[in-house]
Amino acid sequence: MPLDLTARPEHKFTFGLWTVGNRGRDPFGEAVRPKLEIVPMLNGLAELGVYGVSFHDDDMMTFGAPEAERRAELDLFKKTLDETGLVCSMATTNLFYHPIFKDGAFTSNDPQVRRFAIQKAMRNLDVAAELGAPTYVFWGGREGVETAASKDTRDALSRYAEALDFLAGYVKDKSYDIRFALEPKPNEPRGDIFLPTVGHALAFISTLDNREMVGLNPEVAHETMSGLSFYQGVAQTLWQDKLFHIDLNDQRIGRFDQDFRFGSEGIKDHFFLVRLLENSGYSGVKHFDAHAYRTEDTAGVWDFARGCIRNYLALAAKAREFDQDPRVAKAMAYSGVAQLAEPTVGPYTTEAAAGLMGEHFDIEALAQRGFGNEALDQLVVDHILGIA
Amino acid sequence: MPLDLTARPEHKFTFGLWTVGNRGRDPFGEAVRPKLEIVPMLNGLAELGVYGVSFHDDDMMTFGAPEAERRAELDLFKKTLDETGLVCSMATTNLFYHPIFKDGAFTSNDPQVRRFAIQKAMRNLDVAAELGAPTYVFWGGREGVETAASKDTRDALSRYAEALDFLAGYVKDKSYDIRFALEPKPNEPRGDIFLPTVGHALAFISTLDNREMVGLNPEVAHETMSGLSFYQGVAQTLWQDKLFHIDLNDQRIGRFDQDFRFGSEGIKDHFFLVRLLENSGYSGVKHFDAHAYRTEDTAGVWDFARGCIRNYLALAAKAREFDQDPRVAKAMAYSGVAQLAEPTVGPYTTEAAAGLMGEHFDIEALAQRGFGNEALDQLVVDHILGIA
Amino acid sequence: MPLDLTARPEHKFTFGLWTVGNRGRDPFGEAVRPKLEIVPMLNGLAELGVYGVSFHDDDMMTFGAPEAERRAELDLFKKTLDETGLVCSMATTNLFYHPIFKDGAFTSNDPQVRRFAIQKAMRNLDVAAELGAPTYVFWGGREGVETAASKDTRDALSRYAEALDFLAGYVKDKSYDIRFALEPKPNEPRGDIFLPTVGHALAFISTLDNREMVGLNPEVAHETMSGLSFYQGVAQTLWQDKLFHIDLNDQRIGRFDQDFRFGSEGIKDHFFLVRLLENSGYSGVKHFDAHAYRTEDTAGVWDFARGCIRNYLALAAKAREFDQDPRVAKAMAYSGVAQLAEPTVGPYTTEAAAGLMGEHFDIEALAQRGFGNEALDQLVVDHILGIA
Amino acid sequence: MPLDLTARPEHKFTFGLWTVGNRGRDPFGEAVRPKLEIVPMLNGLAELGVYGVSFHDDDMMTFGAPEAERRAELDLFKKTLDETGLVCSMATTNLFYHPIFKDGAFTSNDPQVRRFAIQKAMRNLDVAAELGAPTYVFWGGREGVETAASKDTRDALSRYAEALDFLAGYVKDKSYDIRFALEPKPNEPRGDIFLPTVGHALAFISTLDNREMVGLNPEVAHETMSGLSFYQGVAQTLWQDKLFHIDLNDQRIGRFDQDFRFGSEGIKDHFFLVRLLENSGYSGVKHFDAHAYRTEDTAGVWDFARGCIRNYLALAAKAREFDQDPRVAKAMAYSGVAQLAEPTVGPYTTEAAAGLMGEHFDIEALAQRGFGNEALDQLVVDHILGIA
Repeated sequence: MPLDLTARPEHKFTFGLWTVGNRGRDPFGEAVRPKLEIVPMLNGLAELGVYGVSFHDDDMMTFGAPEAERRAELDLFKKTLDETGLVCSMATTNLFYHPIFKDGAFTSNDPQVRRFAIQKAMRNLDVAAELGAPTYVFWGGREGVETAASKDTRDALSRYAEALDFLAGYVKDKSYDIRFALEPKPNEPRGDIFLPTVGHALAFISTLDNREMVGLNPEVAHETMSGLSFYQGVAQTLWQDKLFHIDLNDQRIGRFDQDFRFGSEGIKDHFFLVRLLENSGYSGVKHFDAHAYRTEDTAGVWDFARGCIRNYLALAAKAREFDQDPRVAKAMAYSGVAQLAEPTVGPYTTEAAAGLMGEHFDIEALAQRGFGNEALDQLVVDHILGIA
Repeated sequence: MPLDLTARPEHKFTFGLWTVGNRGRDPFGEAVRPKLEIVPMLNGLAELGVYGVSFHDDDMMTFGAPEAERRAELDLFKKTLDETGLVCSMATTNLFYHPIFKDGAFTSNDPQVRRFAIQKAMRNLDVAAELGAPTYVFWGGREGVETAASKDTRDALSRYAEALDFLAGYVKDKSYDIRFALEPKPNEPRGDIFLPTVGHALAFISTLDNREMVGLNPEVAHETMSGLSFYQGVAQTLWQDKLFHIDLNDQRIGRFDQDFRFGSEGIKDHFFLVRLLENSGYSGVKHFDAHAYRTEDTAGVWDFARGCIRNYLALAAKAREFDQDPRVAKAMAYSGVAQLAEPTVGPYTTEAAAGLMGEHFDIEALAQRGFGNEALDQLVVDHILGIA
Repeated sequence: MPLDLTARPEHKFTFGLWTVGNRGRDPFGEAVRPKLEIVPMLNGLAELGVYGVSFHDDDMMTFGAPEAERRAELDLFKKTLDETGLVCSMATTNLFYHPIFKDGAFTSNDPQVRRFAIQKAMRNLDVAAELGAPTYVFWGGREGVETAASKDTRDALSRYAEALDFLAGYVKDKSYDIRFALEPKPNEPRGDIFLPTVGHALAFISTLDNREMVGLNPEVAHETMSGLSFYQGVAQTLWQDKLFHIDLNDQRIGRFDQDFRFGSEGIKDHFFLVRLLENSGYSGVKHFDAHAYRTEDTAGVWDFARGCIRNYLALAAKAREFDQDPRVAKAMAYSGVAQLAEPTVGPYTTEAAAGLMGEHFDIEALAQRGFGNEALDQLVVDHILGIA
Repeated sequence: MPLDLTARPEHKFTFGLWTVGNRGRDPFGEAVRPKLEIVPMLNGLAELGVYGVSFHDDDMMTFGAPEAERRAELDLFKKTLDETGLVCSMATTNLFYHPIFKDGAFTSNDPQVRRFAIQKAMRNLDVAAELGAPTYVFWGGREGVETAASKDTRDALSRYAEALDFLAGYVKDKSYDIRFALEPKPNEPRGDIFLPTVGHALAFISTLDNREMVGLNPEVAHETMSGLSFYQGVAQTLWQDKLFHIDLNDQRIGRFDQDFRFGSEGIKDHFFLVRLLENSGYSGVKHFDAHAYRTEDTAGVWDFARGCIRNYLALAAKAREFDQDPRVAKAMAYSGVAQLAEPTVGPYTTEAAAGLMGEHFDIEALAQRGFGNEALDQLVVDHILGIA
């Protein structure tokens, strides 16, 4: 198959510093790989045809270090971005690693911790603005509980909303060109995390004062942990005009947060996902938030990064072929896919209601229609396998 | 323990006709119990101290029967409600059993099926209004897919919204005193159901023209299937003022839809749930949407119904004792539960931001605080076990 | 890609009568498709290149009908097998559909039910022998509980073993050339089913008097429901020489028993599974125990059946290509795959132990080895996608 | 309720050094609690009425330290055991933390790593024998894969068996009074772990040369991660006489390995579990393999430890009351619980088969029996809640 699987910056693939920088530490074991320094990391990504990178404040500037040291780290980062042509596509705050956040950040029961968390985010918003990052992600990994007795969830949601609206106010006050993207997750590291799914986060956003500047950063692994369909969640997010960023990786249902190479597990799910992203007019970055297996050394990390990109491009090519296949068009017509785009009744009017009430339906005849979904779905599998 | 576990109508316990009426049919077996007729069913429920009942159109009036026969069935139902003092607390449409709905109802690819589904709901809204049901539930069990190729989810959500807004228009036009409650479910009977969780449904509601009259009917089993915390979902629903109805039953995570007796599985989860419902000012009905194990005959069905009520009342009593226990108050103070109700920073102002930016935090000292959640949670277990 | 995806009898693909015969009944809906009669069913399967069929007693002979009628049904089945050249590859007993089995069959608390269940199996063993079926499957779908109080599991396992040993005695006494294959499942239709996984069933078999004639019939969907790796389970079953039969279909983790078209969901899992079956010397049938989506009419049922076969053959071809790809051989060598086949220490001897105790290991050097699993796994994905 | 919830050594409660010693490190955060030194740790446990402790080699003796230092650490441990009266109830090898084990220990693709792993276990078996530990646990946390391409599972199982038989040979050769207990787990930290459940491990043991000295150490959290019933798994383990040790903690289905306080989540499951352990004649230790929530400081760790014990004792008391309640006896008789202990047909004979074949069953009458499981299960809930 003469597919062109070469990444180019216009594909807008991005990686977090912590992804290729992941050292393989896990709950039962120590780091297995040496630290990858910022210059070789960015050079390596640029060679892969990547568009940009994202960072947590503490990935790039040492937490608690003197300001001069942090400035030097930031300057090196900026210089290397310039030299490699990479953009800074997203920034976020580390509100989870230090023990101070063990009971939460914006929703810690300790008001001083909450204030510190907001201050930490404000400081990194300044950095994000300096770097030109258009998106600021909020993953509330510590915003949750092990026992429901320890927080009134309604208070927690109020504090969460208060923090986000305060930070949105700060962005507006500073005239930063930044939008917020919330990243839901159901559990891990907390027993239950607030805003566990794409749906809960979208619902929460609808309550914010600054809801217009807040959208989502859905992540494959997080939604898949609960066995929910990531594809369906992204589709609803697009339908609500809230897909501001996306975290691509892979995961098996009902397991710990695996952050596997994109395309390495849910191949069929990702065919539909990539097709949706490509066809929907989504113009944001495709951000890989994943890491290499712990069996890997540094060479394996680069294999991992190449694989993420390769799988996305291959699935995008297959999605195009699928959509251009006349047998697919025929099978879709048989299934009535386009018919679902037609209004059913239109807006309510008394006349429309009366008309509908008077209609007679041949129920048994309608019930006999076959929808041809097995044939249509097999065409999907055929295209994925390259046997169409 | 001298608990009063007698149900009274003011507790507002309700059952669906299909719950005590469940005959034990499942995917691998036939019905095991005889049909329970409407008069003994309502008499039996009234004897248990139940407040009211709910129904699907086809539970009560034979689908496809002549109008006169349906009218007679409805009249018998009304008469028996009158005689027993039960109210009709909720109504809903069966949009899933007949083969015509195999590809969906409001989101079937066939426009005629969609129109029929809306007509069927309108007709039963008339019945609901006649019976004084204040809540109309929409469970979209067939609104989904087995293969994502068969529907564009965005079109499906548009059709779903169109149908609900049309029906809301009908209710307003007719001046019916009815609110809508959407019931989310992640899967079963479809591979993936649209609006899979409390969160997705809340988010969807925020897009409706008639969003003020549409809330949720969350169900224990449906949310628990995905391993999400039902308690957390209900808390967010209350926080968004959208708890219009609730379906109580029981379920193990990651399994088929079990609809077990309320309180028979997730005892600790339900302690928190009942405490939340009792303390939140929720004034709606407590609706049991469950059924007896398939091992049971008719006597077992009544054991099942009694158990649902008994477990709710026992947990409500325990929640009161918990909230009155001075050791609990002390443990909660230690954990800082009330501190989470305090604003962190208040609304954004330039001055507030500047003030916060200038604050110094003793991070290591803050990190050392223990939150006493083990002790607090053990008090929960102690109260549940009756060993406090 | 010039793959030959035509099924031939020597591929040994088989279908259950209840698979293409499935009418789409589910817990929330009625049958959607007409009954497929035995003659067109077998003709249709033969046209697809299928090798044989399997049956439950009640699929083929009406339960409770007069013997003459049952004999006529059996004779028609035999005649049609003869005419089509299909073999009868497996038989099994329906011990789940009738209400008599609601509390179990071999493990019902009612001894009369247990005796009836054994008699029913004996009668169908006679039929299986007459039809030349070499394998008799036991799926204990009703052998379980909703509440652990209702059965002592140890008694239940003793009754289960007693029934199987009695039936094995019957087969030996009658000199039938039949082996038994147990089919594990974790839940549905019971809350918890005994012998929930491949592992539990293998362990149970090791306790039987007739353990040499009892093996497994693992099913994709059943193992996958629990999120366990079906591939790993089949590999252990082969390692223990107990793969007597296999049920191929598809399923998403943590959901109701879906029985989807083989290859329609877990594409990567099935690549490894098919590769294992093809490379292991497994010579049994490849039995599809699945059914068409409920959206389908009879034409869709045949699309479904064709898809099962097509996906198996495509994955088998890809597995061959993978194993012949020199880059794969190189990547496997790098990962040390063949090194795992080498004994580590051999059988225990005092000398071997002393020798090993005296060895020095350069731990840090050994720890630095990268295993190249990302590169190796990407070659798997490349072959699946046809982009290698 | 005048329950005596005081632990005494004869209850045989034990804790691992790593449990109260857990410092709250997780994948997204650093340790939150100071190291608890061995002397205060053992003193604290002794004060709680604990019987003994267990250890990994590296918990107690610094990995890679000079022998003299390790000897001093061991001597301090022995001396403190003596002083506190605690026994050493179990030992195990840390074959997972150091990067050398990233691809496995007994099943690493690197033969040198495999040899080192066996040597490490031998060395600690010497320590275990010196300390009088009767049980040696094997948790193969790193024995698994992220991609099935990286190991042939059958080779891995052969290497696993080889290592265990070699170590069993060593124990016999040294005349150590030690039995082995395998601890299954489905995943985490590996993508798929070999011997994922109680069942798979029991089946594997049946293939070992030294199978008589190898049993199981099932863990609540590990079995529950897959949604399997831990109670059912332990019951089968007891039925196969292989319950050599048990790891008590708590966990929600389908989540990361939580290791919560025993009795804090699955209260009803644990009622049945404790009742089974108490009634079955199991005489081994009750080992808590859990840790305090990460929100806790050192005081919270002791709250956690007390809670584990308290919940076990409370459930044991409730199980006794349940078994002595005459209403329970009556409900069990109605359900036919004792009838399941009666043989169904006895061993196979030609005469028995002929007799059974000739029996007539009144199927419809047998099908009408109700089993009263709702009433029986509600008595369970009543006893748990203390409202019986």
